[in-house]
Amino acid sequence: MAEEKYELITRRLQEVLGGDLIKGVLAEGRTPKCYWGTAPTGRPHIGYFVPLTKIADFLRADVEVTILLADVHAFLDNLKAPLELVAHRTQYYKKILLAVFTSLGIPTSKLHFVEGSSYQLTKEYNLDNYKLCAIVTEHDAKKAGAEVVKQVESPLLSGLLYPGLQALDEQYLDCDFQFGGVDQRKIFTFAELYLPRLGYKKRAHLMNPMVPGLGGGKMSSSDPDSKIDFLDAPEVVRRKIKKAFCEEGNVDENGVLSFVEAVLIPISELRIERAKGLTGADADEGAGATDQTPFSAEGAPEGTVFSIVRKEEHGGSLHYSSIDGLKEDFKAKKVHPQDLKTAVANAIIRLLDPIRQTFEKDEEWQKVEKLAYPDPNAKPEKKKKVKVYHPPPPGKGKNAKPAQDGAAAEPASVAATGEGAHSTAEAAKQQEPSS
Amino acid sequence: MAEEKYELITRRLQEVLGGDLIKGVLAEGRTPKCYWGTAPTGRPHIGYFVPLTKIADFLRADVEVTILLADVHAFLDNLKAPLELVAHRTQYYKKILLAVFTSLGIPTSKLHFVEGSSYQLTKEYNLDNYKLCAIVTEHDAKKAGAEVVKQVESPLLSGLLYPGLQALDEQYLDCDFQFGGVDQRKIFTFAELYLPRLGYKKRAHLMNPMVPGLGGGKMSSSDPDSKIDFLDAPEVVRRKIKKAFCEEGNVDENGVLSFVEAVLIPISELRIERAKGLTGADADEGAGATDQTPFSAEGAPEGTVFSIVRKEEHGGSLHYSSIDGLKEDFKAKKVHPQDLKTAVANAIIRLLDPIRQTFEKDEEWQKVEKLAYPDPNAKPEKKKKVKVYHPPPPGKGKNAKPAQDGAAAEPASVAATGEGAHSTAEAAKQQEPSS
Repeated sequence: MAEEKYELITRRLQEVLGGDLIKGVLAEGRTPKCYWGTAPTGRPHIGYFVPLTKIADFLRADVEVTILLADVHAFLDNLKAPLELVAHRTQYYKKILLAVFTSLGIPTSKLHFVEGSSYQLTKEYNLDNYKLCAIVTEHDAKKAGAEVVKQVESPLLSGLLYPGLQALDEQYLDCDFQFGGVDQRKIFTFAELYLPRLGYKKRAHLMNPMVPGLGGGKMSSSDPDSKIDFLDAPEVVRRKIKKAFCEEGNVDENGVLSFVEAVLIPISELRIERAKGLTGADADEGAGATDQTPFSAEGAPEGTVFSIVRKEEHGGSLHYSSIDGLKEDFKAKKVHPQDLKTAVANAIIRLLDPIRQTFEKDEEWQKVEKLAYPDPNAKPEKKKKVKVYHPPPPGKGKNAKPAQDGAAAEPASVAATGEGAHSTAEAAKQQEPSS
Repeated sequence: MAEEKYELITRRLQEVLGGDLIKGVLAEGRTPKCYWGTAPTGRPHIGYFVPLTKIADFLRADVEVTILLADVHAFLDNLKAPLELVAHRTQYYKKILLAVFTSLGIPTSKLHFVEGSSYQLTKEYNLDNYKLCAIVTEHDAKKAGAEVVKQVESPLLSGLLYPGLQALDEQYLDCDFQFGGVDQRKIFTFAELYLPRLGYKKRAHLMNPMVPGLGGGKMSSSDPDSKIDFLDAPEVVRRKIKKAFCEEGNVDENGVLSFVEAVLIPISELRIERAKGLTGADADEGAGATDQTPFSAEGAPEGTVFSIVRKEEHGGSLHYSSIDGLKEDFKAKKVHPQDLKTAVANAIIRLLDPIRQTFEKDEEWQKVEKLAYPDPNAKPEKKKKVKVYHPPPPGKGKNAKPAQDGAAAEPASVAATGEGAHSTAEAAKQQEPSS
């Protein structure tokens, strides 16, 4: 049982540091506690499916999951955004993340949301922050943030503080392990080094692989269509996927293929497991999900996790039991980008449908949405006054950069990936969705 | 009246930034507010007479003076010292600083002590700190601390934070101007630049010249006798002064001469002014002082601020109305170091006498002293356990350095000077008494 849980907790990860620690917790029959952080800045996009799909594994393995909504960091990320706006965005993030888990049929009784401001401004936390600053060298802090803090000519002090704050979060959120993208590796090893020096215990660290955005490597993120919103209507999804970079035969830089691998196939597998009665820790798993069908076409052979439906005259449908077969066929140009895109668009539309339905039934959420992301075109006569609160249109922020360059510009401007993490005002921009 | 006050506030300073701001406050008939900070670390020594003599001017000009006892910084300065020990030292500092003002007959009704921990760990202060970190570049923070933060091979993050915290202190202590040594100049201009960026007003900055310690430039501060404690008995003062560096004819590196200039002559002048009825803002000034006599010998001409008493066979006594005459004679070797030392030792013994008497009558203070600076030789069987709480014997700290090198080692190990300021755990070591 403990072995199965450990397998579920760690599958598909790129790297696990301190796995024995988690094994120890499981062996004692305790519930492991996990923390994952995200800064409520721009509108979350479907790249968030990547970490959320992994978090679904944690929840199915009976892990207690704390999602840190790093509102203080979000506020610092854009000092022009007043705290009330950040508060609305925090509510919006909570709504959408819960809706995603519910749409996947993942029970959320062991899921907790914590706002950073609830403890990051307390006396104890700040004294610990000062203590850390009195033992951490500039060199170590800089090294820790090298991959997630935006590397600019005049780096800000905040970039040096965030690794320490993210380490303290592990203690204050009382977790056994922190989860994040492998771009967080140096932040994680920093925490492993310094928490014990404050007399706190070292935590384990679980890292997801990095997943390229739907924009792929060459599509400019200044294209507003490179990011698919959770609430996008089917025709919008189709239009955006149509524009996604997906070169024939190219499997190395292909955000569409990556999305299949990191999101669609894991969800198919989840549904197949569930159909077999493998419901994870909670027998009620799946109760809330309206769509329980894997992304395989009707009549596909058992074990199919992804199908590409084609007319007979185009060669007929293709069915895959793993990403490897699909990649092989795509590389051999047996699958045309257009067919792959159609299949992925259909799958995304199915994924988003229950989320949009929840939104349309939830008046409170609709109200929060308007407050969190006000329409930049509404009331143009007041435009000047409220301008500072508006997120730039996707990809139009002045810091917008190609999504692939590792310093992924404004949150709103980045293509679908979704290694969410908070850690830094600056870093948040990259940690959320990068490369 | 406003002009006179301004003159009293700014006399003998090396530099004033934002003097018009203070003139404006005076012109409006308001009471200017000043803040000066010191970190309660090692035992304060008579170098503190330098800033305190200047603060006496502020108080006489009816300025409201806040002394920040930077206990958080003191704690961070030596993470091994528990908070309770710092609390005792904070009480000790308060006792000694009050005793010094009282001994000089300076009314303290407009003097306030504030402990850093009373506001530096609050939500508001920390949010402001984070905000600052989100706009201050590493470069600017490093430049600001260049003179007061110890320059080591692996600088700590704390050194980068302190300039910002010291800027915030101006806002949170609600001062019109901050006072410090001219070594604080870059910290002060940093505050002038960044406070307005947080929406807070820019403050004025008043800077004392730097005063070399009694050890002078060449006497090693590893000599425990290079620092005179406020509570030293007369024979100890004589022994320490005897060892002070005071080379015949050398007026450039001469801590003994500097002490005459920065402390003894200003106090003489204060007493002469007072005898003439020039009591400053408070007519009760001088009421608490037992010794009202300037450091001039009996029979000295009017206007004498310092006398060197010699037997007739050694050339007879010398009387000076300013430091210039004394320096001239010393340079010309008309005054032997031994005669200067004797005069200075006598003056210091007179200065310390009322302070020691206050201490001997104050049982609470005596108790605090034992708790704040426990005898390292007491109960040797427990030595190992409590060792970390003991300040090193003066000059014996592992970081002890010659007082003149600008990075003045442990607070306890530095000769008499006294540009007190707090600003940083690291910096405190230098800011207090430096070359």
